[in-house]
Amino acid sequence: MLGIGGEEYAARQAAMGRLAARAGFRGVVAWSRGGSAQDHYADVYYLTGFYQHQPSIPDFPGHWRARGHAAVVLPVADPPPGGHTAVLLTNSRDLQEPRPAARVQVTPDLVDALAEQIRESIRPGRVALIGYEAMAAPWWCRLRSVLPGHELVCADDLAWEARRIKSPAELDLLRAAGALGVRAVSAARDAAVPGATEADVATAAIAEIVRAGGAYSGMGISSGAESYTFAASGPTPYSADRRLAEGDLIRIDLYGSVRGYLFDLARTWVVGGEPTTEQRRLLEAVRESVLAGIELLRPGRRFGEVARRCQQVFERSAFAVHHGLPWSETDGLWGHGLGLSLEPPWITEGGPDADGLIEAGMCLALERRIAMHSVGGASHEEDVIVTDSGPEVITLDTCYPGV
Amino acid sequence: MLGIGGEEYAARQAAMGRLAARAGFRGVVAWSRGGSAQDHYADVYYLTGFYQHQPSIPDFPGHWRARGHAAVVLPVADPPPGGHTAVLLTNSRDLQEPRPAARVQVTPDLVDALAEQIRESIRPGRVALIGYEAMAAPWWCRLRSVLPGHELVCADDLAWEARRIKSPAELDLLRAAGALGVRAVSAARDAAVPGATEADVATAAIAEIVRAGGAYSGMGISSGAESYTFAASGPTPYSADRRLAEGDLIRIDLYGSVRGYLFDLARTWVVGGEPTTEQRRLLEAVRESVLAGIELLRPGRRFGEVARRCQQVFERSAFAVHHGLPWSETDGLWGHGLGLSLEPPWITEGGPDADGLIEAGMCLALERRIAMHSVGGASHEEDVIVTDSGPEVITLDTCYPGV
Repeated sequence: MLGIGGEEYAARQAAMGRLAARAGFRGVVAWSRGGSAQDHYADVYYLTGFYQHQPSIPDFPGHWRARGHAAVVLPVADPPPGGHTAVLLTNSRDLQEPRPAARVQVTPDLVDALAEQIRESIRPGRVALIGYEAMAAPWWCRLRSVLPGHELVCADDLAWEARRIKSPAELDLLRAAGALGVRAVSAARDAAVPGATEADVATAAIAEIVRAGGAYSGMGISSGAESYTFAASGPTPYSADRRLAEGDLIRIDLYGSVRGYLFDLARTWVVGGEPTTEQRRLLEAVRESVLAGIELLRPGRRFGEVARRCQQVFERSAFAVHHGLPWSETDGLWGHGLGLSLEPPWITEGGPDADGLIEAGMCLALERRIAMHSVGGASHEEDVIVTDSGPEVITLDTCYPGV
Repeated sequence: MLGIGGEEYAARQAAMGRLAARAGFRGVVAWSRGGSAQDHYADVYYLTGFYQHQPSIPDFPGHWRARGHAAVVLPVADPPPGGHTAVLLTNSRDLQEPRPAARVQVTPDLVDALAEQIRESIRPGRVALIGYEAMAAPWWCRLRSVLPGHELVCADDLAWEARRIKSPAELDLLRAAGALGVRAVSAARDAAVPGATEADVATAAIAEIVRAGGAYSGMGISSGAESYTFAASGPTPYSADRRLAEGDLIRIDLYGSVRGYLFDLARTWVVGGEPTTEQRRLLEAVRESVLAGIELLRPGRRFGEVARRCQQVFERSAFAVHHGLPWSETDGLWGHGLGLSLEPPWITEGGPDADGLIEAGMCLALERRIAMHSVGGASHEEDVIVTDSGPEVITLDTCYPGV
């Protein structure tokens, strides 16, 4: 049987403790990231159209630093004649057409090269850093120590503001992404026959995305007795062992992109048959509360109103009336912004974005995931462009005709 | 035509500049990560077997912080009776079997909860942080400011040391991964017929991985006139437009995993026909230099020797004799460690790892990627387990019988 046994984990922890003690440490903190919907490419790609596939790998002192990353430097004080001059720093000289919309500088040490570029092109003072999630701690510390005259400030708010309203070209890419996501989930439904595995279902969805030239970013998928969870608890979200049976709940939350612009949609259904009364109540509750919120995605409404409407419809659902409120996996969240990333606004009843105004040109994903151990779980999510005349659902499919 | 035009990038840069100037900044630095071979899950997964698929999303102050991340706290000074007690912190309560090998604490604010856990279980002093690449700058700054008595130190060397020699169970997982990678590349070869697109080829490879329950992490793929590059320069590595023609070079560098353990292999071949003399010299040069290095992957040899041997064979190849030395995309690198990540040792002629001794139980990937605009590019990569009796190539296939 392949796999790591429990004793091996105990031995690993003990060995790590010994190594750390020998090096004079009092303790160890291991830190990791899982479930990344995609690389954090949004800001550099937004500004320059640049992305590279050379893998991100750990630093090799004296050879490379921050490999697989990229930076754009954009001076804003005293712009030169002819406008702003963006410089793109990358450790990959591997470029296909179209060229990045910036002057390109290739360097093995992205951190020191960035410091040098900042010194050369930006006068001492405050400098906004956007994209902090991809900025690892030691690089940040290095930048601060070699740039005593510049104060680097995490300023992702600027990026959210700049990327909040989508251009016509961006909206067309988001529509293409939404349509591809729908085709992928449709392929998943076709594959979800009794006897198939979750991995078979995932294969159908991913193949549909890749064949069309889209990028698969990630998924939650679960079924049957495990349908109350979002995904398997290993680096592979789907099971290749568990076989679907007639009457199983199956849920899929799928994200991917077309030229970097994301779709993010979720569906839940019953394999090969009609839902039981319990299942039907669950599916209707999650779907109808999301659809009710979509009706309010109109210019002039506020995000908090949308969340409140979703919540009200959910609380009045037959499911909630019979079972009480199940646990939401998304901490009260009823949706979020969508573009080159999963992003603000965060659509909740409270919080800093609740009073924010909905505007034409926004793209928003409304979603809910619920989990109840005894019944199962369900997810439903739609992507919506806000237009002057109301919501345009870009993830419409024939199974759920939308609003 | 879908896509963002050059003028739109100029407008974005100008708008970002105005936003930053209005907020009192002198300049903007955008930072991003692309080409991440996988999430940075290695250290927490290594210590506890924990991974979660809830997507990593930006912080929402007052609601969540470091969502999609995980941390393990392991005190090493004065271990309690019964041994070390690892605590796993996560913002996902979504767990399938098997359970993590740690006490689990679910929290929406991973950063402050981690600080609290460190204060409770580790006496003041130096604390090793492993997994720095997933630790974003503001979280690090916050941890340092709320933990004045603890000195957090980036100490990934401890992780490389602990994970350097693979256990028998890990080696079996790496063998399974290597075999799956070979099947995936074989499926790609079958799909690479004249008229197919790179996306068709990628689909075949990825479907093979997913259907078997493996995880697809990333790929470089290129063909024909673009074969001198590693991949397309957008968030999708493959082209769904360009069609393969007989005689095209096609190269694929594919990485993915089985239960988190990676395969990483690369092949280059000619579509639907025999290579020209030039193509044959290119393919032989890159393959034979990698295979020559594999011969030296034996206990007692040193990494620098391996790189030197590869380099010698490459320099004497008919390709190098006719064309001189092409540009290497990997900065003199002839290989690297492989396990839960792409990792040290970095196999080069110089550098800190050159004098390191090869030991039984290591898993190493030997590779070279070369690019010459006029001829094209080629990649070859094999994964090898070092045994007491010599190299065990775990990515053997019938096309390249290996050594």
